[in-house]
Amino acid sequence: MYDTIRPIIWHEGTLQLLDQRLLPQQVIYNSYTSAEAVATAISEMVVRGAPAIGITAAYGVVLATQQALQGHVADWRQAVAKAIALLAKARPTAVNLAWALAEMEPLVSKVKEHHALEKLLARAVAIHQQDIADNHTMGELGTALIAQGGGANPVGVLTHCNAGALATGGYGTALGVIRSAFAAGKIHQVYADETRPWLQGARLTAWELLQDKIPVTLIAEGAAARLMHQQRVTWVVVGADRIAANGDVANKVGTSGVAIIARHYGVKVMVVAPTSTIDMHTTNGSGIPIEERPASELLDFHGETVAAAGCGAWNPVFDVTPASLIDAIVTEKGVVEQPSYAKLAALMRR
Amino acid sequence: MYDTIRPIIWHEGTLQLLDQRLLPQQVIYNSYTSAEAVATAISEMVVRGAPAIGITAAYGVVLATQQALQGHVADWRQAVAKAIALLAKARPTAVNLAWALAEMEPLVSKVKEHHALEKLLARAVAIHQQDIADNHTMGELGTALIAQGGGANPVGVLTHCNAGALATGGYGTALGVIRSAFAAGKIHQVYADETRPWLQGARLTAWELLQDKIPVTLIAEGAAARLMHQQRVTWVVVGADRIAANGDVANKVGTSGVAIIARHYGVKVMVVAPTSTIDMHTTNGSGIPIEERPASELLDFHGETVAAAGCGAWNPVFDVTPASLIDAIVTEKGVVEQPSYAKLAALMRR
Repeated sequence: MYDTIRPIIWHEGTLQLLDQRLLPQQVIYNSYTSAEAVATAISEMVVRGAPAIGITAAYGVVLATQQALQGHVADWRQAVAKAIALLAKARPTAVNLAWALAEMEPLVSKVKEHHALEKLLARAVAIHQQDIADNHTMGELGTALIAQGGGANPVGVLTHCNAGALATGGYGTALGVIRSAFAAGKIHQVYADETRPWLQGARLTAWELLQDKIPVTLIAEGAAARLMHQQRVTWVVVGADRIAANGDVANKVGTSGVAIIARHYGVKVMVVAPTSTIDMHTTNGSGIPIEERPASELLDFHGETVAAAGCGAWNPVFDVTPASLIDAIVTEKGVVEQPSYAKLAALMRR
Repeated sequence: MYDTIRPIIWHEGTLQLLDQRLLPQQVIYNSYTSAEAVATAISEMVVRGAPAIGITAAYGVVLATQQALQGHVADWRQAVAKAIALLAKARPTAVNLAWALAEMEPLVSKVKEHHALEKLLARAVAIHQQDIADNHTMGELGTALIAQGGGANPVGVLTHCNAGALATGGYGTALGVIRSAFAAGKIHQVYADETRPWLQGARLTAWELLQDKIPVTLIAEGAAARLMHQQRVTWVVVGADRIAANGDVANKVGTSGVAIIARHYGVKVMVVAPTSTIDMHTTNGSGIPIEERPASELLDFHGETVAAAGCGAWNPVFDVTPASLIDAIVTEKGVVEQPSYAKLAALMRR
């Protein structure tokens, strides 16, 4: 129950990606057979969400290997190394991309050629399956943080962007917690920020939760403060694209504003992410590269110009929430409350 | 200079309203000859913005009078009173609507029939002209609050929604200050929140400022916190739909969140509104009616469903920013810093 959506499917030598640009109006899987096409799919957001990008990149390495071996490329390892370099540049903010490639890379160097495809595919599948299992673990850990709501006092939560099944191997990080907490009867209403400019909330989060019959109400991002002022939510539950060593969290732009507003109203903030999202090599949030995407994402809608002609736009698609505004980071290895370098370092040693 | 846009025009017995639902792609004035049609135009947001709604309603009373007199209605005053009651219900939050009707109503009772149309039209025109003059006054007063930016340290400001010429008789409240401050060389860059769901920022504010060649950069509302974190703006400058006696400000939903984030980053918040926006009969913000509009404004775009089918939405279109988060309220009668009941009461006695 509550775990039926799979955005990434390996099927008979091809990678199938659910095209998230077309959801929710169309549910279409695209088929990929080369790492180049996979890198483009990541850049163009056919697939998005930090863990999902990592898993996709791992399969991209498998495709590169398959293509090189089937094409009898003289130095297949070099061809795969090139593909890894290309995949690494597909998007800058989510560290899971680099993490997954770093998981695959040593295998490429040391595996015997006649075993290469089998071993690399097994590793990618393991990354994929572990991600789903970890999401279920985080679902339970996050649910334990949420107080039981009484009948007259139903508990609502707010989520931003989509950190769901669609952003992961399946089940989701933030939406994994929400699925688990809903199943446990701890939450009764989910509010989803529509999340401009890409409308991940309206298009993806709402769609996902409706598939599982979890009540979801969409709000404009501007309504979050009024929502909290009316005490409709007790927690903000979000995912992460990269967590710095001190606990600063890069996530979809708007997250830091929601966290500031949450602190103002005494609403708690939970970040749910696998440890593959934690980047102990980046001291704090100022070291995280923040992707800026084309102005057209704001100026146009479905290819039609919406904004005044000649208007410029600034379109950073992530921001950094300082650790001081985060009440808990939930990972598959455990929960870190009031995150700090010491606590995250201890977590990573587990 | 910088004062060329007129959203409301009285022309030979008809009221012409610039249809703000069609901007910026189409610049079309609709023609109105009845108060009923004017009330519908206000409800359906052909015209929006608190001062503009007030001015429009005043002309609506003129149209009702004209229609009753030309139709030789036996009790023309009763017909106009009915029209006033209808106009008063067109939208709930902006108090300028009630204020303008309260300006017109006594005249309806006491004016002689053969003078009625002339006197009522003169009153509506005076309200309209005074609004534009007041906006220029506020432009100067607000500009005086903004520190001169050096060449290497250009000053940016953020505005939310549209409190411009389009929201008033002309020149604008928040955008009046921005026009004046730009003309004075005090600000160099305007950031406009796109302002969901109606996109007043993308469609109206950007269009207005581009008409006057003032540099404007659009951002998603979620990017406001990152904008302030990067110290790109020193002031948030917004309008108001109703200001309670204690200085709490109802304005476009999202304003209170922006104000909370601004306080977090030490960015100042200026509210620009004529005293007709101040409602001394409402003790504090909790007494201000907050309009909730149809979910379809969030779920659909240009008549096409965007959000997941079956998804609900909560669409409050205003929120309340507490007085404690406002650094200055700029009115035509003067500036109130750190607003309080005593300061606003003193202002209103001027």
